[in-house]
Amino acid sequence: MSLEAPSPVQSPRRSRRGRSHSESSATPGLNPHLRVPFITRNTPTYDLIGEESLRKIEATADRILAEIGIELREDPETMCLFRDAGAHITELSTDRWNAKFEPGMIREVLKTAPARFSQHARNPANTVEIGGDAMVFAPSYGSPFVMDLDKGRRYGTLEDFENFVKLAQSSPWLHHSGGTICEPTDIPVNKRHLDMIYAHMRYSDRAFLGSITAPERAADSIEMCRILFGANYVDQHCVIMGNFNTTSPLVLDGVTSAGIREYAAAGQGSIHLPFLLGGAVSPLTMAGSVAQCLAESMTSCALTQLVRPGAPAVLAGFLSSMSLRSGSPTFGTPEPALGSLVMGQLARRLNMPLRCAGNFSTSKLPDAQAMQQAMMSMMSAIQGGAHYILHSAGFLDGLLSMSYEKFVMDTDLCGALHAYLKGIEVNEDTLGFEALAQNGPGEHLFGTDHTLRHYKTAYWDSGLTDDTPYETWQEQGGTDAAQRANRRWKEALNTYEAPAMDVATNDALKDYIARKKASMTDMWY
Amino acid sequence: MSLEAPSPVQSPRRSRRGRSHSESSATPGLNPHLRVPFITRNTPTYDLIGEESLRKIEATADRILAEIGIELREDPETMCLFRDAGAHITELSTDRWNAKFEPGMIREVLKTAPARFSQHARNPANTVEIGGDAMVFAPSYGSPFVMDLDKGRRYGTLEDFENFVKLAQSSPWLHHSGGTICEPTDIPVNKRHLDMIYAHMRYSDRAFLGSITAPERAADSIEMCRILFGANYVDQHCVIMGNFNTTSPLVLDGVTSAGIREYAAAGQGSIHLPFLLGGAVSPLTMAGSVAQCLAESMTSCALTQLVRPGAPAVLAGFLSSMSLRSGSPTFGTPEPALGSLVMGQLARRLNMPLRCAGNFSTSKLPDAQAMQQAMMSMMSAIQGGAHYILHSAGFLDGLLSMSYEKFVMDTDLCGALHAYLKGIEVNEDTLGFEALAQNGPGEHLFGTDHTLRHYKTAYWDSGLTDDTPYETWQEQGGTDAAQRANRRWKEALNTYEAPAMDVATNDALKDYIARKKASMTDMWY
Repeated sequence: MSLEAPSPVQSPRRSRRGRSHSESSATPGLNPHLRVPFITRNTPTYDLIGEESLRKIEATADRILAEIGIELREDPETMCLFRDAGAHITELSTDRWNAKFEPGMIREVLKTAPARFSQHARNPANTVEIGGDAMVFAPSYGSPFVMDLDKGRRYGTLEDFENFVKLAQSSPWLHHSGGTICEPTDIPVNKRHLDMIYAHMRYSDRAFLGSITAPERAADSIEMCRILFGANYVDQHCVIMGNFNTTSPLVLDGVTSAGIREYAAAGQGSIHLPFLLGGAVSPLTMAGSVAQCLAESMTSCALTQLVRPGAPAVLAGFLSSMSLRSGSPTFGTPEPALGSLVMGQLARRLNMPLRCAGNFSTSKLPDAQAMQQAMMSMMSAIQGGAHYILHSAGFLDGLLSMSYEKFVMDTDLCGALHAYLKGIEVNEDTLGFEALAQNGPGEHLFGTDHTLRHYKTAYWDSGLTDDTPYETWQEQGGTDAAQRANRRWKEALNTYEAPAMDVATNDALKDYIARKKASMTDMWY
Repeated sequence: MSLEAPSPVQSPRRSRRGRSHSESSATPGLNPHLRVPFITRNTPTYDLIGEESLRKIEATADRILAEIGIELREDPETMCLFRDAGAHITELSTDRWNAKFEPGMIREVLKTAPARFSQHARNPANTVEIGGDAMVFAPSYGSPFVMDLDKGRRYGTLEDFENFVKLAQSSPWLHHSGGTICEPTDIPVNKRHLDMIYAHMRYSDRAFLGSITAPERAADSIEMCRILFGANYVDQHCVIMGNFNTTSPLVLDGVTSAGIREYAAAGQGSIHLPFLLGGAVSPLTMAGSVAQCLAESMTSCALTQLVRPGAPAVLAGFLSSMSLRSGSPTFGTPEPALGSLVMGQLARRLNMPLRCAGNFSTSKLPDAQAMQQAMMSMMSAIQGGAHYILHSAGFLDGLLSMSYEKFVMDTDLCGALHAYLKGIEVNEDTLGFEALAQNGPGEHLFGTDHTLRHYKTAYWDSGLTDDTPYETWQEQGGTDAAQRANRRWKEALNTYEAPAMDVATNDALKDYIARKKASMTDMWY
């Protein structure tokens, strides 16, 4: 028998069987010592590349903005804001302009953007900080489909949307309710934002994202916040954010820029995301993708400061690769993970908050591929020091599907990351000399004072993984992680309780939605 | 429709369908540009804790050695070597001694240990470097059981052992054949080392590990190398290593120390591993586990230098946590991952090679849990700068089982890590300004010169993950990663071809084994 493996007969796991009932029956996955409204990172960032390389990337971003420029579309007000700030504007047609920026101009504009800000939740205990050493996990965003083990893949509905809001609220390892967790495709396109905002407000008491698909929907999102928080409060505090995509490469379309202006004018937050499929809408090489990402996101962020200096804005990056054989986008691969680490370095140099990466995967099932890819991507987000991590839970199928089972797996992983991000404490107590000295060489440490003092908080206790011996696991049904996750999300929905909301506020929100819905005919595309 | 998700209708993935047949039919997973006999890390290490904390850990390791000491058992020669080097020896009984070391004494002894060395393979193209910026992946080690999707879990046999040697040899993403990949339990305990060494020599042409379960088996391992490489060559080159476990806490037993002396005297390599189940055989707190790990591994390594200064020795750490509820060991959890990063820092300060972590998991299936835990552990190994990563492929069931499917998943992951460890190159070409400038804002980059120049090598091409659109995946059978891995290991065994070996050498090895086997009666425990 090799000395490497714990013997199946004499391993310490066997001699641990005698633990008291009260210990062994504790509910799995609670980890009360790790619960926080947002994470305060106690680990250093993983800085992948050096000063000279960072400067070259920044110089390339500046060169892109100065020599190629950003195309602005269908929003003359945005064009005027950039022109008045010093951009060189060339009219391409009546509603398309090329904007070029002297090197350094956009950075100068961004100096009024806050390095760190609060997004307030209706439950003040759930208010999150975005920036600095704070880190916030939010559910995945934007999938048209949902899937679970029982019913497979189908278009998302409002019921699915509400389910995911409830599942997110039920997990202590997410901090934010997210936005378009899945598309509620059973509700007309021009009305669904009202139901989504209401679901976030009613079934969660955490911060959330508003609509960005049309300026009037952005306005509705903010107006509903005024009902929930009070208009004065909203004017003075960030209570909602919009998550905006540039149209890569190098375009800011009018719907997007008008939406950005709406959020910024109201003093609300916005996230500025180039969605870069390498080889399709950005260079295949990661240095180039990151340079382009910086150029696009900085420019989009700068618009907020031209509208209202000091408005919260979040730099962002969504880097992906593609299959060399099929041309399909690929997620959770190594190169974008490296790119995300560099985005973290660039954001810190700009002194701005960053949204980056998440639990990405192209798998169509909550299987080994799903979690391998998710980990590759998610580790880059947390090690790179991203501040707001959308897509922290549920992402499958290259973002086309929200998975109920993966949602549960991802939130459990997010819990483990709470432990990871605490880092290692090194002091007299944790160095544990007394633990070894108490019994000396060759003696187990089970009963030492040190072990008894620390055993409840020393290790992350997963609520999902199976760590039992093989025979126990087999007796208990021999389930895989996906089957356990399937059971877990159903339990969570069954035991979910909505946070309290006063009747007047609830009625006012419902009334606003009813009036708005009555004012429009249904649109389905 | 949200702007976040690639639309299922208009996504760039659709417009890529027109690729030429020759491109789309390329064999998946080849990645010729990433193939190397061992990795040369081009990424920085992730340094988790600062100078002051590192000094405290080192001081605690020194204090453990000076005040508690290491217990030596049943090997008076080792006791004498340490005593003559300056250790304070206290006799505990006729064959047990406590050895205490003045702070700094062990470090002084270790100054003759090489910072980096070669382990020579019978195919010189496969010789690996251990230490510095080199990194070597080897299969998992020491499981009594094997498992696959068809036959479930059962005791390993010599056929399984040979299968895993062949699978390892077939993968370009491992660099080393490993050692006791699984226990061939159908062969007597006192004879199986001969068959294992032969399998490594015959079915692989990479470097490998020898037996350590008894000094005479260590001697056999080295003697067989003399047949394969020539006695003079073996005396001057490291061609085999032994992987030795301390008996934690703080014991070096006689079988182990005698085996270490055997390898060192022959100028061969050795790995010195404390297997630390936190709370059982080391403090629960990671700072304490790491301090103990350093103390035990340094002492074990030091023995090699007392036997033969300059003999290759590898510092090692196997950190694990335990379930607070059941007392079971847990693998792939966050705290040991942090500890592994710190072990990397400590090894660099000692200027010695490190073996640490691997693709650990407690899962009983090649499922989502398996790869999530594996990634958590494996990322710490590569980011911490470990040099020799045993357990890179196949580890399931808390090291009690080698999994055929997970072996394939892990080797694919090891391939992805080849891409990760290349880091990001930043130069005029990779910054890709021309790629964006060629077509300008709003235009896809598919046909740009830059894309055509880079598309074959820009991204890791997995041989196992499914990145196709949902409908394609469904048409192709809707498999999960485990099912694909099942198919893959069977294909690999079917197409396996043994590397050539000259008849005389093969006969000499077989003759040695036959003579040795005939000289002993079978022992089954």
